[in-house]
Amino acid sequence: MNIDGKPFRTIWASTDHVEIIDQRCLPFHCTIERLETVQQVATAITDMHVRGAGCIGATAGYGMWLAAREANTADQLETLATQLLETRPTAVNLHWAIERQLAALRPRTPDAWADHALQLANTIADEDAAACTQIGKHGLPLIQKHAEQKDGPVNILTHCNAGWLAFVDHGSATAPIYAAHDAGIPVHVWVDETRPRNQGTRLTAWELAQHGVPHTLIVDNAGGHLMQRGKVDMVITGTDRTTRSGDVANKIGTYLKALSASDNDVPFYVALPSSTFDWELSDGFAIPIEERSPSEVTSMSGLRCNETSDTSIALTPQGCSAANPAFDVTPRHLVTGLITERGICEANEEAIALLFPDLA
Amino acid sequence: MNIDGKPFRTIWASTDHVEIIDQRCLPFHCTIERLETVQQVATAITDMHVRGAGCIGATAGYGMWLAAREANTADQLETLATQLLETRPTAVNLHWAIERQLAALRPRTPDAWADHALQLANTIADEDAAACTQIGKHGLPLIQKHAEQKDGPVNILTHCNAGWLAFVDHGSATAPIYAAHDAGIPVHVWVDETRPRNQGTRLTAWELAQHGVPHTLIVDNAGGHLMQRGKVDMVITGTDRTTRSGDVANKIGTYLKALSASDNDVPFYVALPSSTFDWELSDGFAIPIEERSPSEVTSMSGLRCNETSDTSIALTPQGCSAANPAFDVTPRHLVTGLITERGICEANEEAIALLFPDLA
Repeated sequence: MNIDGKPFRTIWASTDHVEIIDQRCLPFHCTIERLETVQQVATAITDMHVRGAGCIGATAGYGMWLAAREANTADQLETLATQLLETRPTAVNLHWAIERQLAALRPRTPDAWADHALQLANTIADEDAAACTQIGKHGLPLIQKHAEQKDGPVNILTHCNAGWLAFVDHGSATAPIYAAHDAGIPVHVWVDETRPRNQGTRLTAWELAQHGVPHTLIVDNAGGHLMQRGKVDMVITGTDRTTRSGDVANKIGTYLKALSASDNDVPFYVALPSSTFDWELSDGFAIPIEERSPSEVTSMSGLRCNETSDTSIALTPQGCSAANPAFDVTPRHLVTGLITERGICEANEEAIALLFPDLA
Repeated sequence: MNIDGKPFRTIWASTDHVEIIDQRCLPFHCTIERLETVQQVATAITDMHVRGAGCIGATAGYGMWLAAREANTADQLETLATQLLETRPTAVNLHWAIERQLAALRPRTPDAWADHALQLANTIADEDAAACTQIGKHGLPLIQKHAEQKDGPVNILTHCNAGWLAFVDHGSATAPIYAAHDAGIPVHVWVDETRPRNQGTRLTAWELAQHGVPHTLIVDNAGGHLMQRGKVDMVITGTDRTTRSGDVANKIGTYLKALSASDNDVPFYVALPSSTFDWELSDGFAIPIEERSPSEVTSMSGLRCNETSDTSIALTPQGCSAANPAFDVTPRHLVTGLITERGICEANEEAIALLFPDLA
């Protein structure tokens, strides 16, 4: 999508190195970082210069291109692959992209690795972008339908960042929004700030602003009130993991918005590439919920007046007890539909299996 | 309640002046401020050194004592009263306390004003504290019932600050909690941080800590998840305005917690002195919702490492559009019961009128 009117992906190959948007600097600075070694790629993933399933997968793919250039032997290649694998141990796309590269390179001689790995890294990135394009294409008519039934913009609420910054391009939850905006359909996005890490404030509001999509930042408490007053036409969120039965694990607070949407007859959609399905799992409440550091609740970072880099402030005196569950589960009956790269289906086992007979 | 083991009210009279806890300094500093003139009282109310309906009413009462000392004529007294009245134009308790003082002083000669005004100011404060004590007494058995049915502490979730800092003592939502704690019933409070102004973080967590009540701070997004996992036994909130039919206007986000409580069979109580009822109003959605400054959403204040006074940081680049509705309405059918100074009743017109036949 656009930054300052110029199209960007979150990651791309240059002649002999990789470039990424360093997402730690957003929303105050848009910094392009050069990654020239496997070690630099590993650091970028570990320290969250990049984040989001699709973006991590693509970064791992390009990391393997640099590995293919650095390695002279199969042993060296495997060692570098392991170094990348250990950056974020639970990221499914990371594992998948590295294994895919290894499977393609192992049968080949070292002199053929670099060209082949670059080609495959580009393919992995292109496939991610293409899946998101398809999500946008399938979600667009939902927004169009609202636009035809009302005056003024279609008001869409989203939670956290399931935007293009989390993928290679377009995003999942944002793909239908960008598609509608680019098609000239008037849209306006309510952006949940998404405490405690403020992905809505720092990432979603920024990327919508850069692409010129009208939006308004709100605290996470406000969405219910806006729905009661008819100011939300639909909700679209992403998901970190969705069971084969349609239960949705996503950023903490998603469940509260789904309840409110249901109470006010506002459609609640979840957008996802099919790689996000967990085909092994039926019950969403079996998904383990990560408990993160209390310091994310008791402190906040932002920009102090007249300073150029982020500063952190304490919100509580030392010793204040805090809990920080990172995700919650929205049960399938609160989900109006799943927007995938193959089309839209209801959030239940039969409908999902019908759309993904080869995967379910 | 206690600060550092010593009992306090939010406001009290000293020999020739008034003392308050300057709530702007919490939670990092507990500062006692001397108010020696009507002008200082007016500033304390306007600039929110004190806040909360009960606390504002008591402060206005004591402000009228200082006015009675400063004024030599009826005209001067009325002028000082007007100065106090204009501090927070929509605060019902402010208006009520000043009018009550004026009605008592007008028939008297100026030399009798000061003694009488002090006596009435103490009465207003005592009545506020007594109403909260009664709310605690009536709410205590609800907590006791949970304690008898489970091992470990009773987990109570609250939103915003309806604590003793918002009244003269005890608070509304917190009164049953303090009563239970003081009676030796094990309680644990989930404290919603309550963005955007963080009253949970800054006030509720602080006052619970000072009184020794176990508690854990959470982001506003987390409550639904905790209820799904059986970690909340009951919710108690305060209210800014409750219709005669039982609809509850309270801090933004209350409605989302009520929805979640209902979805998980968690009882949802609202605690209030009867002065909070709006007897004219039946439909909660007719209550106008204050829209506050977007800067509360786009910035945050707290304590920077090694500094002693609060600093403010920007969370977004300049020009980010934000909306900031301050309250929402929880419809009566989501409210399990109203805990008042006269007892508990269901949130419907008949039950409320039965408990308050003289007011309804």
